[in-house]
Amino acid sequence: MAKDFATRAEDYSKWYNDLVIKADLADHSAVRGCMVIKPYGYSIWEKMQAALDKMFKDTGHVNAYFPLFVPKSFLEKEEGHAEGFAKECAVVTHYRLKANPDKKGSLMVDPASKLDEELIIRPTSEAIIWNTYKGWIQSYRDLPLLINQWANVVRWEMRTRLFLRTAEFLWQEGHTAHATKEEAIEETERMLGVYADFAENWLAMPVIRGIKTASERFAGAEETYCIEALMQDGKALQAGTSHFLGQNFAKAFDVKFSNKEGKLDYVWATSWGVSTRLMGALIMTHSDDNGLVLPPRLAPFQVVIVPIYKSEEEFARVSEKANEIKKTLEASGVRVKYDNRDTQRPGWKFAEHEMRGVPVRIAIGPKDLDSGTVELARRDTLEKQSLPVSGLDAHIVKMLDDIQQSLYNRALKHREESTHRVDNWTDFEAALDKGGFIMAHWDGTAETEEAIKNKTKATIRCIPLNNVMEEGKCILTGNPSKQRVLFARAY
Amino acid sequence: MAKDFATRAEDYSKWYNDLVIKADLADHSAVRGCMVIKPYGYSIWEKMQAALDKMFKDTGHVNAYFPLFVPKSFLEKEEGHAEGFAKECAVVTHYRLKANPDKKGSLMVDPASKLDEELIIRPTSEAIIWNTYKGWIQSYRDLPLLINQWANVVRWEMRTRLFLRTAEFLWQEGHTAHATKEEAIEETERMLGVYADFAENWLAMPVIRGIKTASERFAGAEETYCIEALMQDGKALQAGTSHFLGQNFAKAFDVKFSNKEGKLDYVWATSWGVSTRLMGALIMTHSDDNGLVLPPRLAPFQVVIVPIYKSEEEFARVSEKANEIKKTLEASGVRVKYDNRDTQRPGWKFAEHEMRGVPVRIAIGPKDLDSGTVELARRDTLEKQSLPVSGLDAHIVKMLDDIQQSLYNRALKHREESTHRVDNWTDFEAALDKGGFIMAHWDGTAETEEAIKNKTKATIRCIPLNNVMEEGKCILTGNPSKQRVLFARAY
Repeated sequence: MAKDFATRAEDYSKWYNDLVIKADLADHSAVRGCMVIKPYGYSIWEKMQAALDKMFKDTGHVNAYFPLFVPKSFLEKEEGHAEGFAKECAVVTHYRLKANPDKKGSLMVDPASKLDEELIIRPTSEAIIWNTYKGWIQSYRDLPLLINQWANVVRWEMRTRLFLRTAEFLWQEGHTAHATKEEAIEETERMLGVYADFAENWLAMPVIRGIKTASERFAGAEETYCIEALMQDGKALQAGTSHFLGQNFAKAFDVKFSNKEGKLDYVWATSWGVSTRLMGALIMTHSDDNGLVLPPRLAPFQVVIVPIYKSEEEFARVSEKANEIKKTLEASGVRVKYDNRDTQRPGWKFAEHEMRGVPVRIAIGPKDLDSGTVELARRDTLEKQSLPVSGLDAHIVKMLDDIQQSLYNRALKHREESTHRVDNWTDFEAALDKGGFIMAHWDGTAETEEAIKNKTKATIRCIPLNNVMEEGKCILTGNPSKQRVLFARAY
Repeated sequence: MAKDFATRAEDYSKWYNDLVIKADLADHSAVRGCMVIKPYGYSIWEKMQAALDKMFKDTGHVNAYFPLFVPKSFLEKEEGHAEGFAKECAVVTHYRLKANPDKKGSLMVDPASKLDEELIIRPTSEAIIWNTYKGWIQSYRDLPLLINQWANVVRWEMRTRLFLRTAEFLWQEGHTAHATKEEAIEETERMLGVYADFAENWLAMPVIRGIKTASERFAGAEETYCIEALMQDGKALQAGTSHFLGQNFAKAFDVKFSNKEGKLDYVWATSWGVSTRLMGALIMTHSDDNGLVLPPRLAPFQVVIVPIYKSEEEFARVSEKANEIKKTLEASGVRVKYDNRDTQRPGWKFAEHEMRGVPVRIAIGPKDLDSGTVELARRDTLEKQSLPVSGLDAHIVKMLDDIQQSLYNRALKHREESTHRVDNWTDFEAALDKGGFIMAHWDGTAETEEAIKNKTKATIRCIPLNNVMEEGKCILTGNPSKQRVLFARAY
């Protein structure tokens, strides 16, 4: 595998795109803005899905499936929601093709199949789900409804990037219904906690938990909670959001319930989601100029064994030992691949597995057989060492834990070193040039937020939860402020 | 839970629809022809997915994800394929909505967002996938490609029924690419075997493996293999198909590879799929007038424990024992729910769990505590017995196996009793009236097949694999025939 791809220092954006392609994670498709998630990339997504799905179920949620299509009139019902998504809606207008009489072998849309009402491909499912919940909720006994959906959604983006921003993407969307405001807020916060836990303990990606400003809120939400991560290039990435929707959707779809006192009230709602965008976050948090670096908990294979041999006889001897090691490791719960392809040389395999981010590589040749050792290489540090086969499994289990923790620590250190506290505009601009998170005072108005964005492309990523209250002056207007907020340029 | 639903004898079709709704499996949605899969129904589908996914991976397949959209020109490329699907395509023509100037608060399709080329919502993914494979396959070293996708697809059906025929449905579609015809046929047959294994060992549903006639083939296939099951009402249901696609799609999308001899050749293809239709098959194979009957291997909960009590004190004592039994059963790998809701009476719970098909019910009250027993009820036979708590786990594990096997045996017996061999038209019509599979001679022409279908609505479900060769005369034309084929009216 040739390493003909950009380094991060040369061109971070090109490095990212090259890596996604060369590590076999995804590919551009022939359909504008849509990607193909390749088997290796998809197997990482499957690991993410499995971990998240378990966390959702452990917190009392169940999965269901709602239609892909949202009638246009449903989307209109919640005004803010409609405004937020109208500009990026893929619209189904017809349901049939027919032979084109003017061009043999070609098809045309059958004008007779025009739909009375256009159907929108879901950009998110609040509208179709709340229309459904209306039929499911009558009494407080029907609450809470704690439902999640794994699905594809479409948002017609003009500028797309693999995983980070694609017209179609995969995600999960939780949609819950509650009897009280307090319970709904508690749920919103609980799921933010699940996302933060997942980001930190599975992706090994430290995140800041916070609340969005009004202008950055989800269309239709009363409050949007988020987790924000810092990428290697100093740009922020929103990694997950959890919305307290108040009674907005219940009112739009007339979903009322009789409470314990027998009085009718509108239902309280939350929604929360993470998507294949997390694949982009994963890549840009840990990877290096040799390719992908995977946290062991999400690696499809945590260990790859590469045989070194010159003859069939050597291959047979090495394979015997390799399979033995594989079995021992698997018995310890480690995911192992024995790469016994005879079509590629060891050096090529080393580079390929490095590119694909396999956390630990074992090389084993005839000399190792004689000495009872193997060569071990760690993907994160690129360190190599020779180790006895005896006790290898315990060593590797420990090493995998260590890699998981080291990746997190490294990312946390990077974030801490890249987080700046500034108190005036000059320092703000200088900090933005360096990249990273900036904690600065803001006067709390949407106008100032907008002005800062227009001047610098930096946005308020969030108002961190448990923020320290502190008097100060807005970096742009000098008006009084009660707390610092988190600024950054973002993906 | 009221049992106000039709019996099978009264109205099988209404019984089916009522059951789907009352067992909380699925619901009609506000979108024409689309269903909502409710949490309980979805949890059964998740069990199916998990079992199938493991079988696919055990046979060397990997998952990936391809775009929802198929450009119209791609669909056109394989002529038979295009003809087969053109009439049921949902078509995206625009990508943006805008405020309707004539009607405040409403949205309209923005005419300026018309797509240059219409996008079809995938009815199946051969076209988009083979266009992608073109970039992935150059040499025999790139083969085989053994890829599966879990996805939603849309076929605009005019008459829809929950699970059995819906405009949108969930499925998996395998798409493999091979260097030789033999290998592709072997794969087609292997996956048919996987489906048959799954149907029989998980759904407890016996199936006939066979080959479709030319007129019943998948649009674009050289040969379609299928598994056919017989429902309780004597109608057949196609439960899965596996297609040998020859080089049709490779030719349509110009996918060539250099073989070991360095010569260019077109790639050989297969595709295979099963869908949420299997939920319908599951229901109509085992369920009864009391509701759903689930094979234990697919039951979200295999055992439900219902407490019987009159006082708080009794409830506490019963709960202690119930939780103890739950733990013991779970340690034996049994999925158990303790239904400790205080909002419903035991009788109501019994009926609900019966309706939802929980294989085994345990009732436990104060008298049981005194005698060290519980009351056990089997969903399939509705038999009840009193059993000592001691040794209960082993008894239940055995009972679950027995239910799984009994359901299969009962369905097989029904199929055998409902399979008729007939040799003339009068007997054929009489057998059709009784319902079931009919083994009869056919002269092998599409004309005769069509004539029989028009006269009776019966179709040739398949030519069974390993069919016994036998000289005979076509039931309609009297022309010579070499083997019997399988006729039935079908879902």
